[in-house]
Amino acid sequence: MKCTILSIGDELLIGQTLNTNSHWMSQKMNEIGIDVIHHISLSDDEKDIVKCLDNALYTSNVVLITGGLGPTSDDITKDVLNRYFGGKLIFNEAAHQNIEDIYKLRNRDITEEAKQMSFVPDNCIVIQNSLGTAPGMLFRKDEKVIVSMPGVPYEMKAMITNSVIPYLQENFQLPTIIHKSILTAGVGETVLAENLKEFEKNKDARIKLAYLPNVGKVRLRLTIKGENKDELEAIISQAKNNVVNAISEYIYGFDEDSFEEKIGELLIEKKLTIGTAESCTGGYIAHLITSVSGSSTYFKGSIVSYANEIKEDLLHVKKETLEEFGAVSEQTVSEMLTGALLQLKVDVVIAVSGVSGPNGGTAEKPVGTVFIGIATNDKQFIKKLSFTNNRERNIQLTGVVSLVMLRKFLMNQ
Amino acid sequence: MKCTILSIGDELLIGQTLNTNSHWMSQKMNEIGIDVIHHISLSDDEKDIVKCLDNALYTSNVVLITGGLGPTSDDITKDVLNRYFGGKLIFNEAAHQNIEDIYKLRNRDITEEAKQMSFVPDNCIVIQNSLGTAPGMLFRKDEKVIVSMPGVPYEMKAMITNSVIPYLQENFQLPTIIHKSILTAGVGETVLAENLKEFEKNKDARIKLAYLPNVGKVRLRLTIKGENKDELEAIISQAKNNVVNAISEYIYGFDEDSFEEKIGELLIEKKLTIGTAESCTGGYIAHLITSVSGSSTYFKGSIVSYANEIKEDLLHVKKETLEEFGAVSEQTVSEMLTGALLQLKVDVVIAVSGVSGPNGGTAEKPVGTVFIGIATNDKQFIKKLSFTNNRERNIQLTGVVSLVMLRKFLMNQ
Repeated sequence: MKCTILSIGDELLIGQTLNTNSHWMSQKMNEIGIDVIHHISLSDDEKDIVKCLDNALYTSNVVLITGGLGPTSDDITKDVLNRYFGGKLIFNEAAHQNIEDIYKLRNRDITEEAKQMSFVPDNCIVIQNSLGTAPGMLFRKDEKVIVSMPGVPYEMKAMITNSVIPYLQENFQLPTIIHKSILTAGVGETVLAENLKEFEKNKDARIKLAYLPNVGKVRLRLTIKGENKDELEAIISQAKNNVVNAISEYIYGFDEDSFEEKIGELLIEKKLTIGTAESCTGGYIAHLITSVSGSSTYFKGSIVSYANEIKEDLLHVKKETLEEFGAVSEQTVSEMLTGALLQLKVDVVIAVSGVSGPNGGTAEKPVGTVFIGIATNDKQFIKKLSFTNNRERNIQLTGVVSLVMLRKFLMNQ
Repeated sequence: MKCTILSIGDELLIGQTLNTNSHWMSQKMNEIGIDVIHHISLSDDEKDIVKCLDNALYTSNVVLITGGLGPTSDDITKDVLNRYFGGKLIFNEAAHQNIEDIYKLRNRDITEEAKQMSFVPDNCIVIQNSLGTAPGMLFRKDEKVIVSMPGVPYEMKAMITNSVIPYLQENFQLPTIIHKSILTAGVGETVLAENLKEFEKNKDARIKLAYLPNVGKVRLRLTIKGENKDELEAIISQAKNNVVNAISEYIYGFDEDSFEEKIGELLIEKKLTIGTAESCTGGYIAHLITSVSGSSTYFKGSIVSYANEIKEDLLHVKKETLEEFGAVSEQTVSEMLTGALLQLKVDVVIAVSGVSGPNGGTAEKPVGTVFIGIATNDKQFIKKLSFTNNRERNIQLTGVVSLVMLRKFLMNQ
């Protein structure tokens, strides 16, 4: 089964809105065994919509369309599709009720344009919009399926998940595709590839392995496609085990696991509280930790000591240490750790000091130099790292790597 | 002049890589007066590349192609274009030197595949790659221009900026397009639209106004297109003045100004130092402030007091205050402000406490309730806000709104 995704809207073509819909829909189609062959963004223009739809129906079995369903005059998709499939617009009670409910909730009078949204072609399956006003439409032409949805990402996503995917799975014999992701942090693609050489050589030929890197983390995605689900499941499970054995030290989770949440689970399991003392990251590590709902169970607080006075006053770093070794040094980070344990009264602390850049680098400590420390009352562990020339990236990498180090530290507790 | 953007690569169609290239190129083409009519993503398949190129040349004057230029076997774009335009591959000394330099820098031996990248069609203008190995290619066919570039965003961006745009501007009579952006924060589109009703009614018909919202901020973009640059410049400058007069209180900058940088400039101008005391934001406000290079001039540090003990111990919030009014209250934020001024020894502090969610809400203080305070030693200003049900969004909105409040506070100092 082949699929074309059409994204309709001038805002895409002038570079005003980034098209994330096609990307997401591609992932979802891929997951159910449908091959996406084209993404096409086009403007709200009847002739062009018709031409692109003609082409799409020539090459694909499924055409997913987003955009142009709103109440304003430049939203023409519904009328164009109605003419294309030779239907006539009829009143849809459920869509009308939904629009009324939403306007009531927003305390706004329903406009004439909004009312028009409850009229839909009589030859489509109406997909009710649980999160917005404009209903979606599913047309059949011969053996082909054409779906028109709003461009608002969360409205479209709900329709794909709750209506379109179930419809496609019920009405077509789709191949089975199984994905399994292994999530790693604190290691580059090259090292992973080196460790997975044997695996790549010996793996079942049907297994595909993709490396998906993202600032300090790499997602390894295994994919298998075929007919017999049980057989595929057995092969991919075996492959997953082999990958896990080859790189176990770098793995923090699987599939949709969140790195920060896994760290939180580990802290809960070990019954430990945590805090941070941050210089170059300026609160970013605390922000990562507290991005997790329920983090107040283990996270107590932080001292962001950007200025040396704060390092002295609130973290009890000695003036002499700062003068002799500098703020970016193992010695300073060591005293920050001790000070933070005392002041925050937590079990574990992270402390960081570094040169984020673009200024402040020296020959001895160039931009990107960062000291990261982890400590409990019993022990300290400090590491010197060299990141990049880019300020934003240095802050992000320090955040991820400090959590990677924390994770290792906790595993040995 | 019309333009089609072709993005070649299987990784786009399986939803592995988000296509940000088309979006960026659309912005750039738009800025020089070229209309982008289609974005098309397609796979590394010769027949399909040829078909899409045929179509693109039928509808457009300019075709921008990215992807498929690397050294691996699935990178076929160069060979396909070479056949399409009937050329033959010849050795290019500059490209070869560039590839050699890059491999030397990375301490790697140059591979046979990498060497192939220095061969280019003899009927194209070679665009040297200042940031990577694969050279770009510019072909002419009749009056049309076809450019093939690597898919790596920063390599493509350098080629567009340094080679493609200058080439198009020299070889074609492009209309003049002028954009001016007015940047606002802490106000919604509806309020802005209300304030700009008069402006919209009376503005020159050639002026277009777009609202581009992004978490707590709205970019207002004025655009004019025509022939006579001086005349257009005069009209758009007048329009900009009118917009500024109508909504001056919400404006923090223009065009490419950064919100956090403008706040920093204000602190430098007023010669004030700053720190934060953060509960629900968990260090996010400090992170925003320190995202600016040079922020150490005015930012001293923060106390992230997620737990009540930290509020008591490090910010001297009274136990009775926490017990009587709760951590999320005007009284607690008031004491956090006083404590932070004392402990951080800065001129201005921001303090926040709220319910980020998804848990922890009550009937009286539902999820999204946040108290934000600003203080100097002379005065305090605290505001209660109601944001959303979404944790991530509440943290982001609290960050932006607290800086909006800080900005107002500083303006009156």
